[in-house]
Amino acid sequence: MTSAVLLLSCPDQRGLVHAVAQFVLEHGGNVINAEQHVDHEAGVFFQRVEFDLDGGDLSRDDVGGAFAPIAERFGMSVSVRFSDDRPRLAILASREPHCLADLLARYTAGELPGDIVAILSNHPDHAALAAFHGVPYHHLPVTPESKASQEAEIVGILRGYDVELVVMARYMQILTPTILGAFPMRIINIHHSFLPAFVGARPYHQAQARGVKLIGATAHYATADLDEGPIIAQDVTPVSHRDTVGDLIRKGRDQETLVLARAVRAHLEHKTLAFGNKTVVFG
Amino acid sequence: MTSAVLLLSCPDQRGLVHAVAQFVLEHGGNVINAEQHVDHEAGVFFQRVEFDLDGGDLSRDDVGGAFAPIAERFGMSVSVRFSDDRPRLAILASREPHCLADLLARYTAGELPGDIVAILSNHPDHAALAAFHGVPYHHLPVTPESKASQEAEIVGILRGYDVELVVMARYMQILTPTILGAFPMRIINIHHSFLPAFVGARPYHQAQARGVKLIGATAHYATADLDEGPIIAQDVTPVSHRDTVGDLIRKGRDQETLVLARAVRAHLEHKTLAFGNKTVVFG
Amino acid sequence: MTSAVLLLSCPDQRGLVHAVAQFVLEHGGNVINAEQHVDHEAGVFFQRVEFDLDGGDLSRDDVGGAFAPIAERFGMSVSVRFSDDRPRLAILASREPHCLADLLARYTAGELPGDIVAILSNHPDHAALAAFHGVPYHHLPVTPESKASQEAEIVGILRGYDVELVVMARYMQILTPTILGAFPMRIINIHHSFLPAFVGARPYHQAQARGVKLIGATAHYATADLDEGPIIAQDVTPVSHRDTVGDLIRKGRDQETLVLARAVRAHLEHKTLAFGNKTVVFG
Amino acid sequence: MTSAVLLLSCPDQRGLVHAVAQFVLEHGGNVINAEQHVDHEAGVFFQRVEFDLDGGDLSRDDVGGAFAPIAERFGMSVSVRFSDDRPRLAILASREPHCLADLLARYTAGELPGDIVAILSNHPDHAALAAFHGVPYHHLPVTPESKASQEAEIVGILRGYDVELVVMARYMQILTPTILGAFPMRIINIHHSFLPAFVGARPYHQAQARGVKLIGATAHYATADLDEGPIIAQDVTPVSHRDTVGDLIRKGRDQETLVLARAVRAHLEHKTLAFGNKTVVFG
Repeated sequence: MTSAVLLLSCPDQRGLVHAVAQFVLEHGGNVINAEQHVDHEAGVFFQRVEFDLDGGDLSRDDVGGAFAPIAERFGMSVSVRFSDDRPRLAILASREPHCLADLLARYTAGELPGDIVAILSNHPDHAALAAFHGVPYHHLPVTPESKASQEAEIVGILRGYDVELVVMARYMQILTPTILGAFPMRIINIHHSFLPAFVGARPYHQAQARGVKLIGATAHYATADLDEGPIIAQDVTPVSHRDTVGDLIRKGRDQETLVLARAVRAHLEHKTLAFGNKTVVFG
Repeated sequence: MTSAVLLLSCPDQRGLVHAVAQFVLEHGGNVINAEQHVDHEAGVFFQRVEFDLDGGDLSRDDVGGAFAPIAERFGMSVSVRFSDDRPRLAILASREPHCLADLLARYTAGELPGDIVAILSNHPDHAALAAFHGVPYHHLPVTPESKASQEAEIVGILRGYDVELVVMARYMQILTPTILGAFPMRIINIHHSFLPAFVGARPYHQAQARGVKLIGATAHYATADLDEGPIIAQDVTPVSHRDTVGDLIRKGRDQETLVLARAVRAHLEHKTLAFGNKTVVFG
Repeated sequence: MTSAVLLLSCPDQRGLVHAVAQFVLEHGGNVINAEQHVDHEAGVFFQRVEFDLDGGDLSRDDVGGAFAPIAERFGMSVSVRFSDDRPRLAILASREPHCLADLLARYTAGELPGDIVAILSNHPDHAALAAFHGVPYHHLPVTPESKASQEAEIVGILRGYDVELVVMARYMQILTPTILGAFPMRIINIHHSFLPAFVGARPYHQAQARGVKLIGATAHYATADLDEGPIIAQDVTPVSHRDTVGDLIRKGRDQETLVLARAVRAHLEHKTLAFGNKTVVFG
Repeated sequence: MTSAVLLLSCPDQRGLVHAVAQFVLEHGGNVINAEQHVDHEAGVFFQRVEFDLDGGDLSRDDVGGAFAPIAERFGMSVSVRFSDDRPRLAILASREPHCLADLLARYTAGELPGDIVAILSNHPDHAALAAFHGVPYHHLPVTPESKASQEAEIVGILRGYDVELVVMARYMQILTPTILGAFPMRIINIHHSFLPAFVGARPYHQAQARGVKLIGATAHYATADLDEGPIIAQDVTPVSHRDTVGDLIRKGRDQETLVLARAVRAHLEHKTLAFGNKTVVFG
């Protein structure tokens, strides 16, 4: 059974829920899931609606066009996806393997609701891992001098793969507007702290110096303001005075891995809507 | 601003979401929140819809009647509540004070979305606490011989207070059908284990004997099958080999207190729908 | 059975564990618990040793003197307590009742390993609550002009009660060196965020504006550097885009309450040793 | 710097802590870590002591012999390990790859404090994965008829590899005394429920049918009593009425993976001591 998922946002107004439900009913569909949220401060309405197509009069290709009049009437931003779509994603990595290896293992095990089509790295380290999982690996070394051209090359490669999502799996380079602008709200980064605590470099060292009793990880959309993008997922794990920086790094890896995987899944399932510096994450 | 909350369940069928949304729109309301769930195995649809009444053509007293044709058409069970309702609840307690004291503190702090109108106990211990919070206290001792008459008395008192909800705050008596039948799916119990682990008596002793590394608490609707009622909320906390039974009891108290408070809040906010031996808990 | 607890710190050196164990053995005691920690960066050794006195040759009054030569030999700071000691604590509160009410409920239920001997507040709100629990209540209003004299009065009262510990249960005044200096590392504050995120005022408003997915609370020793004192305990709870500031405040209260109670218990059980801006918390 | 770790248990008695500390001191060692536990009910003392060898008079080969008189005097069971030991482990797997892939990724990343020397499976599925990580793979199909001989073969292979630990990474065969007896308290199993809830087959189906709000995983030493062995580690994750059995299985995988990795690490770091049906897990 194929279903369609609409991800909507527009100024809050009367009749939105009804208009969408009526659209589904008129075309012989059935609402499987619907969840909405109103940001009362901003006066913005967000909705995720999933309905089955089978038995109705809309083919996959028709949904967008058929919904256009409603979108226009209410001033909606709309994004349509189908349950059997396999969004294409690419992964950026540096030296640390854990997030990359985890995403690949999930992909190969058939758990990821999307296809990893390429891995790009400023290091050669993961070529064999990529080959094992059957994913093309692009080694793109970078120096301060070559950064601009390397980023342009990355954008070119990512566009060539026609990716829906870019995942920074502990990619330790700061992205410039070249990449950020090419994939707005479509780049997910994992930061190895519970943001906004310990922004910047070496967060585990900062955490150890401050003597915190929990450490965490934060997955967020990458934006021009470093470590300030809309947060998608966060988690923490307890630590104690006995933990060295090395222990924090090791314990933190599991958080990074899980939190990033959770955020990637939410995006691929069409459950996230970034707005301002926040992310609505539907259940 | 007053809003109405409909809690619905019926056989799953096409057009349900639309019918409810249309009802709201036709009466000049606006959907504030709507969440639904379909139990595909049982073919049952559940929905919680909240909409504002202000500016519409329905008074509080009209909502139920106006919705009746829709309920009839789809075979819905419907329960209506209003955002400014203050559901009345009574608490049953035995000797242990922590759950009772916590609920009273929340009530007095204005945090509870309902009114505690009576405390009933088979012990006299909490009379002063009840008086401090201005809640009537009924001491109803019980012996094996007097159990039937004591329960009848409890039902009479609870009915006299016209309570919507009965909370067993570590009430250590097994309820018979006399009470259970009088308040079906309206009695919440807190069990001091992570059910279904350690059903029955002395769960912390069982937990210590088994050497588990987490202990928990479970809030559920009380039914004739002891410890088998629909679960509303659960939580756990880590323990270790160092914890004695006494430590488990102490640590467990905080779980019991929090989990019971969470379940009571969900019920009072009209967010729970028990079905079979499960509870749909809307977000 | 009475046991003695030694809390030690000194420069790390060979033979420390043995010297303490030998002291216990020579006096006919038996080690019940011993836990140590070495801060390798600072080269400092910390230990908590608990041993029984019964059957040995040391009375309570003798322990300190008998241990003095060892302390001197190794340059130890030593603090001795006994399992049947009841440390005296006072609570500072402002308007919010939840932390205060929780600590009092634990005290009255016999769960707190110490005695709450006084409540001091810049508001009159909790006088009845204090009376119910049989604890003297001091209402000490404060204005910018009277702050110095009010603090002096607080110190006088606290000294009069001979308290071991001062607990700021959401006391919303910034303490000056007058109080801080009188009770160094003996004042525990609860901050309503996961420090160091959201230092300063209105942390829940900050958290909501930042769109975090977890909120937390931090119990720490109060020092002259606001929100920078050694952390004793922290915890977090999940939140979502649906949570208003009001929801965060409500959910946060449970975290504040639990985290503060946990920190107070650790201090009262003689399990904390602050060093620099960190706290060693023994298990 | 090489350190020695002693893992001890014996009847509780006076002077144990001192005797061990004296042994270390006399041989010029320094205690790095020491943690003990007394099971008061059983009257048994457990200790884990780590001390450095450098600068002392004991070589690695001497430690056991030098300690023997103390062990004899107190009736101790003793197990000695060194910080630079690399315990050898083998993994048993069936079809599900997640636990196996995770352990291999940790091993290849250098995070595991031991060496995975072999993978044994009743299915051929993971041969390529094993080869990628450079670990020999033994495919040992099993039928009801061949079970006895297959187990004998497994024992032979494991003995050939001289493994210290056997990890059942979702190995879906019930072990008989043939294997259990060959590696007592040296086989770790991961059960996909929060034991003792949902013992037996298909725990996620059981969990969904019961409507629990948390699901979990349990790592325990395998014993002849299925699902009854000493628990090493457990964890849970929240679920809701929306989760299908498929969702529970997917969410549960992350718990299984993490809990098993945590238990394996604890064993490899010589931090576990099984006693009766419980496991002392040192910090």
